[in-house]
Amino acid sequence: MDMRKMQHSNYMDLAIEEAKRALLSNDVPIGCIIVKDGCVIGRGYNTRERDQTAIGHAEINAIREACAAVGSWRLSGCTLYVTLEPCPMCMGAIINARIDTVVFGAYDVKAGCAGTLADFCRIGFNHVPEVLGGIREIACSTMLSEFFEALRK
Amino acid sequence: MDMRKMQHSNYMDLAIEEAKRALLSNDVPIGCIIVKDGCVIGRGYNTRERDQTAIGHAEINAIREACAAVGSWRLSGCTLYVTLEPCPMCMGAIINARIDTVVFGAYDVKAGCAGTLADFCRIGFNHVPEVLGGIREIACSTMLSEFFEALRK
Repeated sequence: MDMRKMQHSNYMDLAIEEAKRALLSNDVPIGCIIVKDGCVIGRGYNTRERDQTAIGHAEINAIREACAAVGSWRLSGCTLYVTLEPCPMCMGAIINARIDTVVFGAYDVKAGCAGTLADFCRIGFNHVPEVLGGIREIACSTMLSEFFEALRK
Repeated sequence: MDMRKMQHSNYMDLAIEEAKRALLSNDVPIGCIIVKDGCVIGRGYNTRERDQTAIGHAEINAIREACAAVGSWRLSGCTLYVTLEPCPMCMGAIINARIDTVVFGAYDVKAGCAGTLADFCRIGFNHVPEVLGGIREIACSTMLSEFFEALRK
């Protein structure tokens, strides 16, 4: 494994830690961190059920925190790590925030907009982030499948 | 003009009133209201510059308020009125919130995802809102063009 992939994998482990927090409120375990110049400037996890809000995805929570940290709606120079491929709302938020790079874990065939169901990098929006999928994929997807399996019991 | 269009037009006037509030912080004037059973349950306007957050679009602010009002992330049975065609983030939030109907004023060739640059109703997401564009279009688009013209002076 090259150095860059190892770094991505280490940051993804922090996003996985965030995802675990969602379990406390029985929210789908999805976590996100945002990194700038090697520092984590935003963290978030899914709070849709806890807060009963459609806006409460991990990426949105992390982007809000990162914007507050840098005092700007522009998150240029940042990399966002998220355990599940972003949905349309979150991929749109990533574009609006001008985030440079998106690294995600598990692929989402139902709503993934970073290349799976749709590819928001090819629509013609005014910002196109770099996308890297499948980092710590098994850890990220296992966490989700275990959650949904437990729900069905 | 039929009764339904007149109703839409009256509700859009409330969204226009919201849009004007954005001008106080020199934010692009975009406003939004959410209606359920004839009652306004959420209002929002663009606060991107005021709050320096990429999340601060009119629709997101209104959806957050509406979710709080009904105590649920599901906004089934709701109609969202917004002065400008929703961007990818906001169209994604509308889908995530299961909003029934989106009524917008001005069309957005640069980022509109309710049929202009992209059509999120035809991608295969798990919810497809009804979309009606061009309601009070001239009032909505004039407000925007006047704002950008004043910026250039």
